Amino acid sequence: MNPYQAPLAEMKFLLDKVFDAPQTWASLPAIAENVDMDTAVAIMDEAEKISRELLHPINRSGDEQGVVHQDDKVITPDGYKEAYTQYAEGGWVGLCGEPELGGMGMPKMLGVLVDEMAYSACNAFTLYGSLTAGAALCINAHGSDELKQKYLPMMYSGEWSGAMDMTEPQAGSDLRGIRTKAVPLDDGSYSITGSKIFITGGDHDLTENVIHLVLAKLPDSNGISLFLVPKIKVDDSGALGDSNNVTVGSIEHKMGLKASSTCVMNYDDAQGYLIGKANRGLVCMFTMMNYERLAIGIQGLGTSQAAYQMAADYAKERVQGVAAGGSPTGATSDPIIVHGDVRRMLLNIRVLTEAGRALSVLTGQQLDIAKYGEGEAQAKASRYVGLLTPVAKAFLSDRGLDAAITAQQVFGGHGYIRETGIEQLVRDTRIAQIYEGTNGIQAIDFLGRKVTGDNLAALTEFVNECTAKLSTLSHADAAHKAKVTELLQQLILVASEINDKKLEKPAVINACAVDFLDAFGHVLYGYFWLLMSDAAVPHSDKEFAVQKRYLSDFYINKMLPKAEYHLAQVRAGEATIMDIPESLF
Amino acid sequence: MNPYQAPLAEMKFLLDKVFDAPQTWASLPAIAENVDMDTAVAIMDEAEKISRELLHPINRSGDEQGVVHQDDKVITPDGYKEAYTQYAEGGWVGLCGEPELGGMGMPKMLGVLVDEMAYSACNAFTLYGSLTAGAALCINAHGSDELKQKYLPMMYSGEWSGAMDMTEPQAGSDLRGIRTKAVPLDDGSYSITGSKIFITGGDHDLTENVIHLVLAKLPDSNGISLFLVPKIKVDDSGALGDSNNVTVGSIEHKMGLKASSTCVMNYDDAQGYLIGKANRGLVCMFTMMNYERLAIGIQGLGTSQAAYQMAADYAKERVQGVAAGGSPTGATSDPIIVHGDVRRMLLNIRVLTEAGRALSVLTGQQLDIAKYGEGEAQAKASRYVGLLTPVAKAFLSDRGLDAAITAQQVFGGHGYIRETGIEQLVRDTRIAQIYEGTNGIQAIDFLGRKVTGDNLAALTEFVNECTAKLSTLSHADAAHKAKVTELLQQLILVASEINDKKLEKPAVINACAVDFLDAFGHVLYGYFWLLMSDAAVPHSDKEFAVQKRYLSDFYINKMLPKAEYHLAQVRAGEATIMDIPESLF
Repeated sequence: MNPYQAPLAEMKFLLDKVFDAPQTWASLPAIAENVDMDTAVAIMDEAEKISRELLHPINRSGDEQGVVHQDDKVITPDGYKEAYTQYAEGGWVGLCGEPELGGMGMPKMLGVLVDEMAYSACNAFTLYGSLTAGAALCINAHGSDELKQKYLPMMYSGEWSGAMDMTEPQAGSDLRGIRTKAVPLDDGSYSITGSKIFITGGDHDLTENVIHLVLAKLPDSNGISLFLVPKIKVDDSGALGDSNNVTVGSIEHKMGLKASSTCVMNYDDAQGYLIGKANRGLVCMFTMMNYERLAIGIQGLGTSQAAYQMAADYAKERVQGVAAGGSPTGATSDPIIVHGDVRRMLLNIRVLTEAGRALSVLTGQQLDIAKYGEGEAQAKASRYVGLLTPVAKAFLSDRGLDAAITAQQVFGGHGYIRETGIEQLVRDTRIAQIYEGTNGIQAIDFLGRKVTGDNLAALTEFVNECTAKLSTLSHADAAHKAKVTELLQQLILVASEINDKKLEKPAVINACAVDFLDAFGHVLYGYFWLLMSDAAVPHSDKEFAVQKRYLSDFYINKMLPKAEYHLAQVRAGEATIMDIPESLF
Repeated sequence: MNPYQAPLAEMKFLLDKVFDAPQTWASLPAIAENVDMDTAVAIMDEAEKISRELLHPINRSGDEQGVVHQDDKVITPDGYKEAYTQYAEGGWVGLCGEPELGGMGMPKMLGVLVDEMAYSACNAFTLYGSLTAGAALCINAHGSDELKQKYLPMMYSGEWSGAMDMTEPQAGSDLRGIRTKAVPLDDGSYSITGSKIFITGGDHDLTENVIHLVLAKLPDSNGISLFLVPKIKVDDSGALGDSNNVTVGSIEHKMGLKASSTCVMNYDDAQGYLIGKANRGLVCMFTMMNYERLAIGIQGLGTSQAAYQMAADYAKERVQGVAAGGSPTGATSDPIIVHGDVRRMLLNIRVLTEAGRALSVLTGQQLDIAKYGEGEAQAKASRYVGLLTPVAKAFLSDRGLDAAITAQQVFGGHGYIRETGIEQLVRDTRIAQIYEGTNGIQAIDFLGRKVTGDNLAALTEFVNECTAKLSTLSHADAAHKAKVTELLQQLILVASEINDKKLEKPAVINACAVDFLDAFGHVLYGYFWLLMSDAAVPHSDKEFAVQKRYLSDFYINKMLPKAEYHLAQVRAGEATIMDIPESLF
């Protein structure tokens, strides 16, 4: 099997030609001083090398060996510590962190592409750095200057890692029920006591300290607050001191991601520091959670790309049967890529992955404008980030599983054997639909808060912008433009029907949310395909433009009809779902 | 987690009320002398007990422990041998075998339900017996009387098991390239030499002999012949003799089905016996393969049912959040089954599983009439078996994976943990879409041979019969009947377009086959739902009829639109798939 090779040409095309990164960055002074396209290309080239040479080689072995919990220590598989050290020293953990605290100050629009490469190469490894970057983002946004100065440089440098501690056995999607307690101490810090489960990267041997962001309740309060709780105490000089009574109860044995530690964490009078305001912990945590939601979408996207490459390589090598109508080369057996069904499978993965990358880059761009921009541009980008984040998390991770399963099918019987490596992608990416809020929760957030919460204001604004943009495309097929434009309007109409109904039938949101998100995703991908095929026409590589046109036509003709299926499901409403008595289940 | 409980009421309803087993059996004298509804119910009750008490308890432990290859022996997990002995002694392996050779002579229409229970309880265990029954069926259909008398009683009794040896590393979906050789010996037997891979149940410690059905080529022939090759030689008295030079090269390490042995088998001058005519081995093997294809569909169906039960139980127990519009009981947290999205997931699994069971029973019924019937009834049933078998294999196994993944989603984070058991269903059932001919191969067989191979004669006959049946239903919703009737006609129209196009564009079959099969499956399930909801109206249990009507409405309103999506894909044709140059993949 060929090692993973990042699709650099696709990535540069999206940045430069489809979403005009140079113009975006020029409008954001804090970014413009750190990056231009040449710098971005150099960083992507280096990330491609790291993903192929450093991360991909430990992917299969890490799955076989897994994480071990032994003598109160969590030990990662062979090669993980060395790889993490090199990765951290390369500055990759702090890629998008603030330069004044040791980060590289790169835009998220570039960061999403680096993340994708890392996830393509090794899901399990990449989570450790992703959680660290997300925790750092939260501390930077809501922590005191003292906390920032003390913790962020060590996190951006990768010397310390981060973890997000929310779930308890009785409190998963519904965090109201958490029981972890925080008692104020005289010095302004807090004593934290309780247990958390499903803590990704909760402990490991990659770094000398783990910085936990822990949700807990203050005495006599039902509000939830957020605390920074280091595994090892840090003194005023920044040196590591005593253990902080943060211990690992056990690690989970999982379907996949076996090289990523998933811990039960126990806090027994551990010292913690309030982040943000008391009882406003969920708001603070959402800074990290939204970051991780995008990251987990990108986990799915990276899996899709890796799956595509493996399946396409196999389909070009594996010889079986002859083409319908006779072998093109006169051979007695052809590579299976001659078969329509194999091509169909590969094209399904391919068009969803390339459009998925566009979603990832657009979301990264809006995050940058929301963080570094000003005025109405900044406010609008914030609205778009709200709208796009749950879609990126759910739609990209759903497509990630689809891609892995479809690619596995291309391998036939060999796809079920561990040795081939493709079945690991299925097992590893399955969790992406579940953690950081299940995809059902994402859809309810999308339809209930982001779409109908403001009476369709943000959705309408976004759809109108897409529609206007489509009308400016000079190379795209007119019928295809009309089709996508009509479906964009259908989204507004259907959302409006839901919005009108929700007071009388509040269950309609929950019952129809997943189909609405899927409809939105499929229409959005149609929009992206027209953007991409149009932008490719003036490309210096003529074959590149031809390819994008083929893929765009495939998407519009073959996959876009799925949007109408999901819209039909939404229109069919909640009645047949909610009316059936519970006893009949 | 509750143990698996077979849905006996559903099963009896299908047999008795929907497909009128008593009338079918009365028309088949060879069956009528062995079974009536009372006998069938007694057998199902016993199968329910066996599946719950004997098979389900070794499902999780077998996955954890797996099969081991050690000192040239293949050792199954703890408890497998004891369970297999008890299962065989109960007569379950020979349930549908001929009474004069030690079988129980039961109809397949009942056998499919027993198979479903066993697969629900334990996928891996059930394969051993299923392959034995399939091999016995093939020997019975094509073997000499001597082979039948010598091998079948020991196989029906479960004392010897069976295996199907087709695949070689270079020859999977395309068997033309097999290299295993068969050289005639003076005594009329053959010397078999070669290697086979992916041999399910190729070796194990459950039985004292394994009877291999091996595809091989005679000298100077490109034709493929079928041979019976026992692991241990059997002398004229039926006693076991020397080793037959049939050895295990290795076992595969797989994504799932870890308690099912998947062997590389080596034949080194092993003694074999021709089954059927020389160079006609594929025809003979297809008797077994068609049997296994239905069985593997039922593996998917059994998984769907098990997944539904686990998810529904969990959804009624797990408390998280409150219902939209307020808790129905005034609680601060409700069981998650109050949430529309959780109900949507459960209903998706439920309606596809119940309709899938109808497909399984209908196919079993047609197999019985094809085997035991006479005249035109027999001939028509043979045509329907040809039509339905690839659909049952592919559509049931595809829905099996969907069901397992959806059920896992209901479990949230707990679904990713091995302990819960739901992730095992995903891993175990994934192979069902691949082995016994990938689902792509099934679809090409369906559209290329079964549908267009006779210029739509069998499809039209079947569709007309369904349409006529629909018109007789007095309780079903008129609009729903009209919708399904129209879609049945759409299937004919679309198939006709493909049929007209295939000479000019032969790739159209391969490129559109999967979508055509999926369209057919979704329409067929709509037909089944109307049959079931109609047949339930006079049911003595009024709640049963109410439930079927809810489920039927859900299916027609929410899932049937997917047929239109797949029809749109077929109509979009092969051009966008085939035109793109291979170099662009």
